[in-house]
Amino acid sequence: MSTAAEYGVLGIGNAIVDVLARCDDAFLAANQVTKGAMTLIDEARAEELYAAMGPAVEVSGGSAGNTMAAYASLVGARGPKGVFIGKVRNDQLGAVFAHDIRAAGVAFTTPAATDGPPTARCLILVTPDAQRSMNTFLGACVNLAEPDIDDALVAASAVTYLEGYLFDPPAAQAAFRKAAAVAHAAGREVALSLSDPFCVGRHRAAFRALVRDEVDILFANEAEILSLYEVTSFAEALDAVRAETRIACLTRSEKGSVVVAGGATHAIEAEPAQVVDTTGAGDAYAAGFLAGHVRGRDAAQCGRLGSLAAAEAISHYGARPVRPLAELASERFGALA
Amino acid sequence: MSTAAEYGVLGIGNAIVDVLARCDDAFLAANQVTKGAMTLIDEARAEELYAAMGPAVEVSGGSAGNTMAAYASLVGARGPKGVFIGKVRNDQLGAVFAHDIRAAGVAFTTPAATDGPPTARCLILVTPDAQRSMNTFLGACVNLAEPDIDDALVAASAVTYLEGYLFDPPAAQAAFRKAAAVAHAAGREVALSLSDPFCVGRHRAAFRALVRDEVDILFANEAEILSLYEVTSFAEALDAVRAETRIACLTRSEKGSVVVAGGATHAIEAEPAQVVDTTGAGDAYAAGFLAGHVRGRDAAQCGRLGSLAAAEAISHYGARPVRPLAELASERFGALA
Repeated sequence: MSTAAEYGVLGIGNAIVDVLARCDDAFLAANQVTKGAMTLIDEARAEELYAAMGPAVEVSGGSAGNTMAAYASLVGARGPKGVFIGKVRNDQLGAVFAHDIRAAGVAFTTPAATDGPPTARCLILVTPDAQRSMNTFLGACVNLAEPDIDDALVAASAVTYLEGYLFDPPAAQAAFRKAAAVAHAAGREVALSLSDPFCVGRHRAAFRALVRDEVDILFANEAEILSLYEVTSFAEALDAVRAETRIACLTRSEKGSVVVAGGATHAIEAEPAQVVDTTGAGDAYAAGFLAGHVRGRDAAQCGRLGSLAAAEAISHYGARPVRPLAELASERFGALA
Repeated sequence: MSTAAEYGVLGIGNAIVDVLARCDDAFLAANQVTKGAMTLIDEARAEELYAAMGPAVEVSGGSAGNTMAAYASLVGARGPKGVFIGKVRNDQLGAVFAHDIRAAGVAFTTPAATDGPPTARCLILVTPDAQRSMNTFLGACVNLAEPDIDDALVAASAVTYLEGYLFDPPAAQAAFRKAAAVAHAAGREVALSLSDPFCVGRHRAAFRALVRDEVDILFANEAEILSLYEVTSFAEALDAVRAETRIACLTRSEKGSVVVAGGATHAIEAEPAQVVDTTGAGDAYAAGFLAGHVRGRDAAQCGRLGSLAAAEAISHYGARPVRPLAELASERFGALA
């Protein structure tokens, strides 16, 4: 048995600044953007697409970064605090990312790269149907490597949360595996988010091995879990995941989520929301679930906290919370928040 | 008589990226921020205040920059097109500013500074009462100077619009006066916005001379016009301004505006709006008025277009338009839009 954790959740992910703009479907078609997906792009394509898109808003993002910001908003001053590991460059957008995650109440000490590509950015195009299409230039994230994983931080965190997108930059898989090993050696838990069906397709074998061998808590949406197990029905995917992980949270957009935990399966309803922009819905769900989990809530209640955080995320433009989630959760769930 | 203008409005102003965050009144007090005003700060104070403030959103701003973005949104594809002169540095935030103003449909060709201070930023704190308190680090704007004023652009623009904030950086006053002289020599009009009562206080004598000698269209709110003429009642300010300018637009928040033009005085009502953030209300009003003016609308109708643009600006977070103003204006005013 491990000692009490200093941190609740340690998130490891790509440190990205989102560049959000509205557009119509014709713009996506004319610029060959895959609707609803996350597509990796190089710097030249990033420049080209940026030049074509409309006036934008810059706001810190990154899947695990968003999760940590929402986690901090949910636990508020009560704690336990969250911490983030990710790589920026020492440029203006890197300073923006570092400011925002710290200002959200998350510890962040990964040193910024002093050379190499600039801070990563994700060009996010939001269509009138509230769908987001993401185009990511990984930039400095390709330099995240094993030495950036601070063993003491991992050992001091109840849950180490890994975003699947981190399988894209070349050196990060090793960092990932090191973090999982350190966490388990310290008696902690490892959580993973599958991030995107195309990301799963790019790294299926590695994800399958990681889920089977290292993951205690898995987050995936329907498309991602079908892709992981190469099955065509949700029921088959559920059977597969039940056999391999201790806890799995499968999100299904407006149909809510299914949480598999301790032999039981819980269907959790979505919370009502006026949908403005779906960016960050999955990230927020993971934050809600983990905030409940590290504070000892049962699996169904953790799922409800996930639904609440996701509903807040989709009700405004941008991925990170605008309303303090601790307050929203108290209003909705009282002592169970 | 001059030839037909190629551009409708040429805006000259500080090229600034806004850094917007929400806070409460206690934060303003604890950090000695003057509520509702624009305060000039140096780089050290900018770093200090930024470190203290919450997670932020970066969005292109600057008073005349906002006016030009709203102007472009109002005239849409019908034109005449707008153009902007302002100084950024060749850094990431400078690239953001340049992208956004061009993506809004405004021509922008001022060369970025290749050395000296970074692109300007304005730390804007929005309190729950929708008031904004601005803290501006002028950065690269201090390098805007006479050579940046392209005489051909000024001569090709029906109205040259100057933001009062441009009296703060040391070299810009000369650029201002040069632009006014070139505009008048070409038979064009000069418009000025007083920007802020404290800015008027810092440069009162220069503003008085400029208004008397060069300004055809003056924009000011109540506090600014009282400060300019050092009077205590709106009626006295109105008398003073009537004697000195051909057209004056005095904005009065929810009381609408008073437009003085051609010997007549028009009281214009505010358009209804759900107030979220007052950042950019005055900038948008000027855009609406000028968009009507360059297309030959009468003074009262120009004022109504100003009210419409201001209502859109205050109905969302951030200064630049979110909804296409040409559409809103058509819905509201039909053929008079």
